[in-house]
Amino acid sequence: MLGRLNHVAIAVPDLAAATATYRDTLGAPVSAPQALPEHGVTVVFVDVGNTKVELLEPLGEGSPIAAFLAKNPSGGMHHVCYEVDDILAARDRLKAAGARVLGDGEPKLGAHGKPVLFLHPKDFSGTLVELEQS
Amino acid sequence: MLGRLNHVAIAVPDLAAATATYRDTLGAPVSAPQALPEHGVTVVFVDVGNTKVELLEPLGEGSPIAAFLAKNPSGGMHHVCYEVDDILAARDRLKAAGARVLGDGEPKLGAHGKPVLFLHPKDFSGTLVELEQS
Repeated sequence: MLGRLNHVAIAVPDLAAATATYRDTLGAPVSAPQALPEHGVTVVFVDVGNTKVELLEPLGEGSPIAAFLAKNPSGGMHHVCYEVDDILAARDRLKAAGARVLGDGEPKLGAHGKPVLFLHPKDFSGTLVELEQS
Repeated sequence: MLGRLNHVAIAVPDLAAATATYRDTLGAPVSAPQALPEHGVTVVFVDVGNTKVELLEPLGEGSPIAAFLAKNPSGGMHHVCYEVDDILAARDRLKAAGARVLGDGEPKLGAHGKPVLFLHPKDFSGTLVELEQS
């Protein structure tokens, strides 16, 4: 069921500084920042060849990463995103296995414009897991 | 400089349970557990196609992930590992840029038998970064 790792998301308090670190210190190609007000974040994509690192900075009030950054002021790994062929089939299989799907269980359009779901970290060794329709 | 994402490492309190979750609930191929006493961990590799997830359980006294699990009893994302062509050149570039290399700065043989270094999380948005010679 589980497809490739689409991205690792890292919440950062200062997107410009984090972008400079990945671009200049680590020498990785980085995108321009993209404001996604409907998701409450500004994102920069770091191309690491086989997958992406997404640097996320809070945008606006009630950002979904604000509480995480309050607990982790330097930033930190926020979630991992895996691709799945059929997100509704994946959801139903996960629910049948007892895993908790966050929110109302209906896929929303994610940062890439594709349907996504988030799974409860407590069901996955403390790791917030995003599934994205591939 | 930065090459592909070799793996995302997740520290887990119960390796058998975490392995079952990835294998049965998420439907991913998983390896047999490998005890690495010289690294203080037992590891299971999860194949996600384009990269690996490494599930790490403490092994023996003084495991390098024991403190992390004491702070995060359910487990959590512990580090990310990127491949580099030349680990000594990478180290020297990073040090010149002001990044802190953990330990004595000399590469050690990692879980895959290749030279690795770890970089200070405070220099990378709260993320522990491993570099592995590819």
